[in-house]
Amino acid sequence: MAAPSKPTRIGLAGLAVMGQNLALNIAEKGFPISVYNRTTSKVDETVERAKREGDLPVFGFHDPESFVHSVQKPRVIIMLVKAGAPVDQTIKTLSAYMEKGDCIIDGGNEWYENTERRAKAMAELGLLYLGMGVSGGEEGARHGPSLMPGGSVEAYKYIEDILLKVAAQVDSGPCVTYIGEGGSGNFVKMVHNGIEYGDMQLIAEAYDVLKSVGKLSNEELQSVFSEWNKGELLSFLIEITADIFGIKDDKGEGYLVDKVLDKTGMKGTGKWTVQQAADLSVAAPTIASSLDARFLSGLKEERVEAAKVFKSGGFGDILTDQAVDKKKLIDDVRQALYASKICSYAQGMNLIRAKSAEKGWGLKLGELARIWKGGCIIRAIFLDRIKKAYDRNADLANLLVDPEFAKEIIERQSAWRRVVCLAINSGISTPGMSSSLAYFDTYRRSRLPANLVQAQRDYFGAHTYERTDVEGAFHTEWFKLAKQSKI
Amino acid sequence: MAAPSKPTRIGLAGLAVMGQNLALNIAEKGFPISVYNRTTSKVDETVERAKREGDLPVFGFHDPESFVHSVQKPRVIIMLVKAGAPVDQTIKTLSAYMEKGDCIIDGGNEWYENTERRAKAMAELGLLYLGMGVSGGEEGARHGPSLMPGGSVEAYKYIEDILLKVAAQVDSGPCVTYIGEGGSGNFVKMVHNGIEYGDMQLIAEAYDVLKSVGKLSNEELQSVFSEWNKGELLSFLIEITADIFGIKDDKGEGYLVDKVLDKTGMKGTGKWTVQQAADLSVAAPTIASSLDARFLSGLKEERVEAAKVFKSGGFGDILTDQAVDKKKLIDDVRQALYASKICSYAQGMNLIRAKSAEKGWGLKLGELARIWKGGCIIRAIFLDRIKKAYDRNADLANLLVDPEFAKEIIERQSAWRRVVCLAINSGISTPGMSSSLAYFDTYRRSRLPANLVQAQRDYFGAHTYERTDVEGAFHTEWFKLAKQSKI
Repeated sequence: MAAPSKPTRIGLAGLAVMGQNLALNIAEKGFPISVYNRTTSKVDETVERAKREGDLPVFGFHDPESFVHSVQKPRVIIMLVKAGAPVDQTIKTLSAYMEKGDCIIDGGNEWYENTERRAKAMAELGLLYLGMGVSGGEEGARHGPSLMPGGSVEAYKYIEDILLKVAAQVDSGPCVTYIGEGGSGNFVKMVHNGIEYGDMQLIAEAYDVLKSVGKLSNEELQSVFSEWNKGELLSFLIEITADIFGIKDDKGEGYLVDKVLDKTGMKGTGKWTVQQAADLSVAAPTIASSLDARFLSGLKEERVEAAKVFKSGGFGDILTDQAVDKKKLIDDVRQALYASKICSYAQGMNLIRAKSAEKGWGLKLGELARIWKGGCIIRAIFLDRIKKAYDRNADLANLLVDPEFAKEIIERQSAWRRVVCLAINSGISTPGMSSSLAYFDTYRRSRLPANLVQAQRDYFGAHTYERTDVEGAFHTEWFKLAKQSKI
Repeated sequence: MAAPSKPTRIGLAGLAVMGQNLALNIAEKGFPISVYNRTTSKVDETVERAKREGDLPVFGFHDPESFVHSVQKPRVIIMLVKAGAPVDQTIKTLSAYMEKGDCIIDGGNEWYENTERRAKAMAELGLLYLGMGVSGGEEGARHGPSLMPGGSVEAYKYIEDILLKVAAQVDSGPCVTYIGEGGSGNFVKMVHNGIEYGDMQLIAEAYDVLKSVGKLSNEELQSVFSEWNKGELLSFLIEITADIFGIKDDKGEGYLVDKVLDKTGMKGTGKWTVQQAADLSVAAPTIASSLDARFLSGLKEERVEAAKVFKSGGFGDILTDQAVDKKKLIDDVRQALYASKICSYAQGMNLIRAKSAEKGWGLKLGELARIWKGGCIIRAIFLDRIKKAYDRNADLANLLVDPEFAKEIIERQSAWRRVVCLAINSGISTPGMSSSLAYFDTYRRSRLPANLVQAQRDYFGAHTYERTDVEGAFHTEWFKLAKQSKI
């Protein structure tokens, strides 16, 4: 293998799909890169590919020592290995050959607390550490991902020039910014993924209503989603959804999407998002409903049995065949999807803000919306509106009350309510859309029935309550008073 | 203070509301009890009260050593102190004077892993440990709680005779059973509380629809809930709800419930339940929505502002004044509440089963339903039906498909759908009822739109998918195929 004539600019360890593509991207942007993988065949494969894709300056190493030593000082090495124990193992291997001031960057979907723990341990060795969210899948990694680096600012400065060129480029600049201290880069990427779960669920519900109630064919669905991708819903996920409806089955008749089993996998970040929301007292029902939908999709055999039980009770796949105006339904569903999406992003953003406040990270929500405009899975024209909302008011309590978003919701609320009710009356569940609507209708009400819940808590647990008219905490002997009034 | 002439049967440390009442209950059932509290005035107060309430055999101690030594061997001491650090502190204080074979029982709402950690540490000292959920509030503790002891069977056997007498007594026996090993007692109590959150939220939504849409007065609400408490909804929470509507404000005109601020507090077990559900891949949307409703209720100031923003968009407190048939509405809401409740309990029970499987606890769901029939906050006639469902089939996949519950749902589904749609069209959020309905409509469908989500995941992340017709994991180059078809 050709050795570099002088030290390379950066190193990358872990050459699975994401790592390999990111390495080629970095090399293509003019930064000579050293690469290493425990299974060495991956090293050779990457070097070969670099040659094939334009003689890119990628230098392979089969042992960690020469790999580390090939990088210019202060050395920066990006890891792209599986979260958890493999990260610890890789750090152990690499740090043995690193020197004070060198830096390791974890580019995986790591739990933010693991990053904080490691950053501390590294600091004791005089090493710097970054946890960097990388979104965009294979394509993004190769041609321009969205990057969310958090941790040591000093380390960020070492490689800012690389990241600015490697990231996706959109009208407002490269899709990268220094996120904040500690594990903030991982945390933000986690919420990004939670929002991605929400988007995918909402699209699946739109599909379900259009297909099951509106009886749209795959051809029609493809054209609807293509059309939607020209307007307010323009986004990567809507685009690939349109693509999917056009793919014919290669194993038989019809379309491939109809042959795909209705069981959804997951990898952990959605779960963490929901758990963090609970921890931070932030309501995130749209994201939670997308996680639940994945859980329930996994119970395929139970669902098939349940369908049999309820079939005898008059339940078919769809409850009633209501006559629908296709054109109006399509327009209604688009509006319901959009309004629900606003709720989902409002939840995600508020979750990030709550964590930022807890940890003192000082995260800028508008900046995050900006770096998600390109490269990542949730990239969408919609994110520009979110950025502008925070530009108008950085302290916005909730996206829902931004004047522009509020106007958009008001315009769409009738369609939104129609779609959810149509689904309910058809027996088609739309957990994402209906929980979004409930979120909106709860948030916009000055008076909720929570007074009753608090009265109950005071009744059986003496938890006290506040009053609407007088300051203070009050306790009432409800039981005693009720008994007296019964006499 | 009078010293006991011979060793007492049991000790209790921590004399706040719950501890004091449980101690009196134990003494009243004929078991001489030693009591201790760090703040010693509580000790004297408890002894005084025991005298007042019938010269009960309660013996107070101001120092931990003589307290521990006053109990007969093997010594059993129940702690009722705040979860977390105070429990560790109390264990440290008491265990210093205990001997091999003695036992400590934590009766608080403790996180189950803390109990498992402590049980291990205690075992190293030769001491036994139980984590025992106690439900029923002040009244229950005094006159008969539901008890959920988990941990050392040997320790359970020492005090089984006490627990059988102290627990609430119902037709099917005392509301206590040995739950299982480790932290299972705390875990089951945690889910009990999660279910309690769900019940309270569903009742609050019923109240909201009846009051806001049906325009029922407090008098009418009181009579509706009293009536409901004679039928299938008969339960402690429905009973106290009826009571609450009858209480006049002692500080002014009208009813107290209308003066209670609509902000709900919480103490952690609901949050844990939601987080555990995510951890165990169990959908628990009804319980989650009740937690979210509490979070959103807390944002009172934000909600007041949001209401202003949307008022100008034509949103009043209620969107449309639809003419409703009061009698029919009341009947519909009762059915919606009942059907939603089935979903909520199905979620809670499946959560317990998933944890039991993970930990090898071997929990018996029917037994848990039985011991919740009396004493605890969620006590209800409904629990007898759940017990019977598991008696019919201990391996029931989900309460929804039990023949009796399925029949009940089928009978109520039209009313359930009507209520949720009426609420949606009135702008009244019913997150608990609508997420329950979505849970049902998702679980009972043999084919969900999850195929699209899985196709998307394979498109951008090469996550593979299964097929409906052929075994195996497949990957498709969606992007490449879509590009080809566009040419």
